[in-house]
Order: sequence, then C-alpha cells, then structure tokens
Amino acid sequence: MPFKKTILLGVCGDSAAGKTTLSTGIARILGEDRVTVICSDDYHRYNRKTRAEKGISALDPACNYINIMEHHFDLLRRGHPILKPIYNHSTGDFDPPEYIEPKEFVIIEGLLPYHTKALRNNFDVKVYLAPEEELRVLWKIKRDTTKRGYTEEQVRASLAKRVSDSSEFIQPQQSFADTVVTFYRPEELAQETGSHLNARLTLRPTLPYPDLSDVLKEVSNGQELVTSTIRRVGGRLTEILDISGRISRDQAVRIEDVVWSHLPDLEHLRPEEMGKYSDGNEASQSNPLALTQLFITYHLLVALIELEKDKEERRRRVLG
Amino acid sequence: MPFKKTILLGVCGDSAAGKTTLSTGIARILGEDRVTVICSDDYHRYNRKTRAEKGISALDPACNYINIMEHHFDLLRRGHPILKPIYNHSTGDFDPPEYIEPKEFVIIEGLLPYHTKALRNNFDVKVYLAPEEELRVLWKIKRDTTKRGYTEEQVRASLAKRVSDSSEFIQPQQSFADTVVTFYRPEELAQETGSHLNARLTLRPTLPYPDLSDVLKEVSNGQELVTSTIRRVGGRLTEILDISGRISRDQAVRIEDVVWSHLPDLEHLRPEEMGKYSDGNEASQSNPLALTQLFITYHLLVALIELEKDKEERRRRVLG
Repeated sequence: MPFKKTILLGVCGDSAAGKTTLSTGIARILGEDRVTVICSDDYHRYNRKTRAEKGISALDPACNYINIMEHHFDLLRRGHPILKPIYNHSTGDFDPPEYIEPKEFVIIEGLLPYHTKALRNNFDVKVYLAPEEELRVLWKIKRDTTKRGYTEEQVRASLAKRVSDSSEFIQPQQSFADTVVTFYRPEELAQETGSHLNARLTLRPTLPYPDLSDVLKEVSNGQELVTSTIRRVGGRLTEILDISGRISRDQAVRIEDVVWSHLPDLEHLRPEEMGKYSDGNEASQSNPLALTQLFITYHLLVALIELEKDKEERRRRVLG
Repeated sequence: MPFKKTILLGVCGDSAAGKTTLSTGIARILGEDRVTVICSDDYHRYNRKTRAEKGISALDPACNYINIMEHHFDLLRRGHPILKPIYNHSTGDFDPPEYIEPKEFVIIEGLLPYHTKALRNNFDVKVYLAPEEELRVLWKIKRDTTKRGYTEEQVRASLAKRVSDSSEFIQPQQSFADTVVTFYRPEELAQETGSHLNARLTLRPTLPYPDLSDVLKEVSNGQELVTSTIRRVGGRLTEILDISGRISRDQAVRIEDVVWSHLPDLEHLRPEEMGKYSDGNEASQSNPLALTQLFITYHLLVALIELEKDKEERRRRVLG
C-alpha cells in the first residue's frame, strides 16, 4: 500500500530547543484526538549507562536506530500502526514498546528526524527550532534541574561535551527545514526566557505562504511589531519575519484572522489555545509563539486539504 | 526494495509441540552464525495479567499484533533489521525490544505464524508440528513445571481452558504447511516421550522431494523401519513417511547420504548434530528427529540455491 494517509509534521532541534512546547501546543490547536505525537529520542540505540561507557552522545546518529526510524516514519505516513520503542528519560533506560495507530496528524519531534533523505521524505512540513544559544542553555538548565534531576553543573558539563556533536549532527539539519523558528531576547530584556521573547520565522520557498505584507504593515502601524525582510539565502528567496514580544493579543488575532481567511473551508481552530504554553508549572501565553503555531498549523491544514483531494481523485478513478 | 534476501522457515504448532527443539536443532545443523531464530510469542498484545483479566488466551489472534508480525516478517524476508518486542515467559510481561539484523536463514517459530496470507507469503518452507495429543500434554507438563514454575494441576487447567482456542485458531494452520511432523508413541512403548518415538512426516506437494523409494526399501529390509504411503489428501497427492523409533543411527545415516547426494554443491552439514536435542538437562539423540531435520534442511538449502541464482540473474541484468 504505497498511499499516503496521514499528515506528518517534523519538529527538529537540539536538546531543550522548545520541541515539546511547540508540538504539544500545535496538538492542542488541532485537537488532541486528531494528533499522534512521537519523540524520536525513543529510537536511541544505547541506554544512558552504555552511552557513558562508550563515550557517545545521544546526538550522534550512530547512537540511534536511524534505519528503524525510516521504516516507522514511512509506516506512519501510510497510516500503518507501529510498535514504537520507549526511551525513559527518568531511568535513562528502555521500557517495553508501545503500539501506536497513527491519527490524522502525526507530529515527530526529536534530535535527528531530518538526518537522512529517507527520513525527510516522509514529512509534509519540516520545522527546525534554533533559539538563540544562550536562551537554549537557560531553558535546558531549567528543565533538566527540575524535571530530570540534574544539577546545573551537570547540565553545563553535558552541554560542553555535546558542542561538537551538536554542530556536526544536529545543526546541519536546519538546511532541510521549510521553516526555521528562532526565539531570542529583546535587547532591553536580557533576562527574559518566556512570553516576551521575540520570534524570528525564516520562511523558505519550499512551502507557499499567504501574502501578509498589508496586514503586517497595518498591525505594526510604524512600531515595527512585525517586520518582513526578503532575502536570497543559499540561493533561495526567503522571507524573514520578525515578531516582537511586545505585540498584543489583539494585534496577533488580526493577523491570525487574515491567515485563516486563506483557508475558506476551515474554521479558526481553538483561537483561545494559540500561544499557550506551560512555563514550569505555570500556564503562560506568548503572542510570537501564537503566530509561529499559526503558520505551522496553516501548512498542516493546506496539506490535509491536498491529501483529501488526492483521496477523492483516487476514489473517482477506481469507481470509473 | 522489494527483493527477497533471506530464507524463511516457519515452525508452527500448539504450546509444547516441540517448536523450540526443532528450531534450535536446525539452527545448529545450518550453523548458528547463519541463522536468526525468532519466536512469534513476542508479538503478544497483552501481558499475562491482562490476559487473565480479559479472559483471553495467547492462542487467540486478537491477543497478538498480527499486523506488526506481517510487517516484521516481510522486513526480515527482505533482509531489513527490526526492533522486535520481547515477551518474557518468566515474568509474563514485556521487556524492552531487541534490535535484530536477519542472517541468511530466519526461523520463525510460534503459535500463529500462518494465520493470515500476508504472514504465510513470507515463508520459503512451512512446517507444522502436530504430535500425538497425549504426548504433547506430557511434554507441556514436563516443561512448564520445570522451566516456567507451574504445578501440574495448573498446566492441565490451562490446557483445558485452551482446547477450543487451539482447535479454532492453531490447528487450522496445519492445512497451510508444506510438511506436517507428527511424533507418536510406538504401541509397545506407551510411556516413551523421547528418542524412541516414531515420526510421521506428511509431505505435501507444495514442495519437491527427492525420490527415496529404493533407499527406504533397502534400509528397512523387510522390517518396516521406514514406510512410505502415497495418498490423495484434500485433493492433493501427499506422501506419508513413517519413521520408526527403532531405526538405527547407521540406517539413518544411509538415508541422509542419499538426500545429500541430491544437493551436489553442498557438503553434508554437521552430520554429528543430526537428531540431537536436549531432554531436560540431558543431551539426547533421536534418529526420527534426525531425518525430520534433514528433510527440512534439504528444503532450506534448495531455497538458498534458488535465491542465489535469482540474485546472480539480477546482477547480470543490471550489468547488461
């Protein structure tokens, strides 16, 4: 059965780049009953102990079953169930596998989802998260000291050890993404790690985007809340959208409404969920995050409409 | 990659029918470095506790991930690695999965390897083990009380509960086998469970066999040590070969030599291993078992020669 049956979103990035925040946020917007979220860390080849003994980091492709990932992503794309391994971040070891039947949308987040062409070919939309590096370090310390039981010293040591693996294996995947998302701190807020961060979206021409120049200008109204720059990057025309952390909810909603108007058959999905995320135990909301989620959701829905058209076309061909 | 790369042998039968004895014996004859042995019990859907709660036996296809088995057998046939689940018979629960790269020969033993056409299509040789039922009960009691920590009463209760599942799900698979193997007790040895058992091989016309009529007559020499009956069974011409538990090692070796002479390019593989099996902690040898292993090994080697020819043919076509 060669037919594509589901929509696959990739969310790639280094450790603590914000992958889970983005994935679960998009799953909530689409409706959790329609989305399967998978973490490709589950495909680690070695447990924590063996990695330490071998002196290999989880970022190294040799430390992951890339070939099994290729099989499984392809099966998910074609709507087939898989028995997914489970890497347990608390124990650093593997649990019994889990049976997963893919829903309409499958979000795959992880360190290496774009490492090979056979992996990349499965995705409808490929996102890469590249937050400002100092910000990622702050996020990682916060998460690993609260949720994974490490000390700040241990986290910094682990980051230092992984620097070369990160630049050798993780960062090169950025070039395969349709959209690169970079959260960064405004100059005047050096301590900010949350809802007032700016977001930069690098929109590559591998996917079509609605033309928003008029509404962006109107919303910004001379304040440079959202600025668009078009440049040729690596030979390809690329739009760089900078969204200020100062943009208000109302201004974000106006942009959202314009984007939704490009999807005439669809309702504005769960507007109240846009930009929500959990900051430790606290529920927060970020308007730059809301607009980031919006652009990605937009592509998933465009892909779904195309998939439905393809299915209808096949049905018609079979019925004659 | 649609190409077949390995030779798959199926060894199907009810619990304690002798599957592991036959599989490991054949693996030793072929050479363990050339053989991957897999048990399809690993694909159980529920652990022991959940099966008890749901009142479902492991023999029920609904209690097994048949679809995952279909994927995995197909991958193995094409030489691809799998992450195989592991059912732990001691704990009655699942362990972390295991990465398996298939060797030249793959032996899949289990309760339901022929349940669907998609499963059956993967096998080069399909064996079904149907020992005399009373003998199977004795084998099961012996194994489950010594290796799996049950009492005889528990084993008998479990067998009684499974009678209908066995006839509904396991036994119908017999009709798909190329060879059915039935060990049974000689009339004069009602207590025999080991090396003096007779073997009946039902050789279906789905695979070719060498003509052994002359050598069988000569070996038996009026003593009916090996008798061949040809009958039409279910519309298909079928040879039924009865091998007496009284056949000597020398007589068995003469038959083995004739069969090997039909495979001119191959040496007689590990003749000293033929018919060996472990009876509890004791090493034993059975000549009917040796001849059973021989016929199955013969088919595997014929299949391997054909596969090599196919590969050579493809290579020639590509090189022009």
